Amino acid sequence: MIVTVTLNPALDLTYTVDALVPHGTHRVAAVAERPGGKGLNVAGVLHALGEPVLATGLLGGATGDRVATLLAEQGVPAAFEPIAGETRRTVAVTDRQDATGFWEPGPRIGTGEWAAFAARFRGLLAGADVVTLSGSLPPGVPEDGYAVLIRLAARAGVPTVLDTGGEALRRGLAAGPDLAKPNAHELAALVPGGRPADVLAHGARAVVVSRGPEGLHAQSPEGAWQGIPAAPLTGNPTGAGDACVAALARGLRDRTPWPELVADAVALSAAAVAAPVAGTVDPGLYRRMLPGVTVTDLRTAA
Amino acid sequence: MIVTVTLNPALDLTYTVDALVPHGTHRVAAVAERPGGKGLNVAGVLHALGEPVLATGLLGGATGDRVATLLAEQGVPAAFEPIAGETRRTVAVTDRQDATGFWEPGPRIGTGEWAAFAARFRGLLAGADVVTLSGSLPPGVPEDGYAVLIRLAARAGVPTVLDTGGEALRRGLAAGPDLAKPNAHELAALVPGGRPADVLAHGARAVVVSRGPEGLHAQSPEGAWQGIPAAPLTGNPTGAGDACVAALARGLRDRTPWPELVADAVALSAAAVAAPVAGTVDPGLYRRMLPGVTVTDLRTAA
Repeated sequence: MIVTVTLNPALDLTYTVDALVPHGTHRVAAVAERPGGKGLNVAGVLHALGEPVLATGLLGGATGDRVATLLAEQGVPAAFEPIAGETRRTVAVTDRQDATGFWEPGPRIGTGEWAAFAARFRGLLAGADVVTLSGSLPPGVPEDGYAVLIRLAARAGVPTVLDTGGEALRRGLAAGPDLAKPNAHELAALVPGGRPADVLAHGARAVVVSRGPEGLHAQSPEGAWQGIPAAPLTGNPTGAGDACVAALARGLRDRTPWPELVADAVALSAAAVAAPVAGTVDPGLYRRMLPGVTVTDLRTAA
Repeated sequence: MIVTVTLNPALDLTYTVDALVPHGTHRVAAVAERPGGKGLNVAGVLHALGEPVLATGLLGGATGDRVATLLAEQGVPAAFEPIAGETRRTVAVTDRQDATGFWEPGPRIGTGEWAAFAARFRGLLAGADVVTLSGSLPPGVPEDGYAVLIRLAARAGVPTVLDTGGEALRRGLAAGPDLAKPNAHELAALVPGGRPADVLAHGARAVVVSRGPEGLHAQSPEGAWQGIPAAPLTGNPTGAGDACVAALARGLRDRTPWPELVADAVALSAAAVAAPVAGTVDPGLYRRMLPGVTVTDLRTAA
């Protein structure tokens, strides 16, 4: 079982309008609701691939109830710690040109709630093959929150994949996750020059950097690889990084060799870009993409 | 007890942002949630004045649960019919200049749900002194929905105040509500020329037209009156019409003479304009406004 941690999930709302008129009133033609937050996307992709998964994290209030209901409708198993605050919403207003986004702040997490989640997480480790830790920390969770969870997992012999940015990434890396997956922007903020190898000096045992249409760069003590899809992809880039994390978690569980793992992560990310919403993937498309991925061993190439 | 009917309530969200940037992403600085829908504003104002009130209508899903929770936090007694659909949201994005609104469509109401509400409404009439019927009809409620409720109330000897527009107003008037409260826009759409007296020909026993800063015009078989506040008001005009309905409902219950009733409705509307959000009112401000209202008997003046 892969356990996906989402400490700051959301109810993602998409509103379709004709055209966005600042300071006007819009009758929304269509409303779409889905579970939001990077870790829930990871869980959705793994579930779509038929992999055993359990989504955990923090959920509260009527909005949290709605997220739990939508996850259950998707068939994604979940065990969230209830909190007193209201889970946040995001609103994306889509018109004929593009989307306009509004992100609510996350609820404040109490000290007791964070302790209760850590205890729940420790309990879930008994059945976990791999743990993924995705996204931002809500207010009230200590900045070393991911480090705490990574150390608990390591003590239980469960490998971890960390996908976050900023101080949460820096502090999390110090606890030695098995894999970190920053995007190019998060990498550049962490290490001047943005060299993936430098992330290992921060504590991660391996790193995979997602570079959008340019594919992935993997760096581990065993070597370095670059994976590129057959063709540049158009579609919805939201969730491609989460599909990458899903592939990496499965590969860690199965001890997949690096070149094969990189190819798998590139194909799954590419299939996620083609999906209409984040957190879903067409397994058939993913399988068709896989043979077209080019993986280069960067030591041989150099 | 005044029973307020809200068939298409909402969860009203207000997002504070620095500036609205079309096709940008906004971190929302502050989120305010409140029960929305004209009938819930009427209930909120009556409750703030200490008047016994009961809010009813249709609520469903996690959003409906949230509205019920917020009403309970306000202390407003409520007895809503549960529906399978999700109660709608409205989002108002406020920046330093003005607000941009997004209105979700209401949920579709099933035939059985509408019948169940009518039965619930009939049961509530035993304890009702007056009924108010406010706002739009959600999809699935027949266009003569308000007419059905007005006839049930009349059979039980309970007077009704109708505040809606379009076809729901036209069809509702045919059932002979004791009072209709269109605004100037709704009046003009109903009767060419916009003469309040013409509304009586459509079936209402009396009509009060709200004209924003120009106050109110009341027309009944006993006469016609105009009420104007002491000074033009600035603030939040949303909810002023609902405060007017609250005053009219209380006046119907107490058989308040028309000139006094018009003055009361003008003062309460004006106090609502000064309130930061719809559905609330400062009772002290309302009492201070009351002596400044000018009521003119339009027959004497002519």
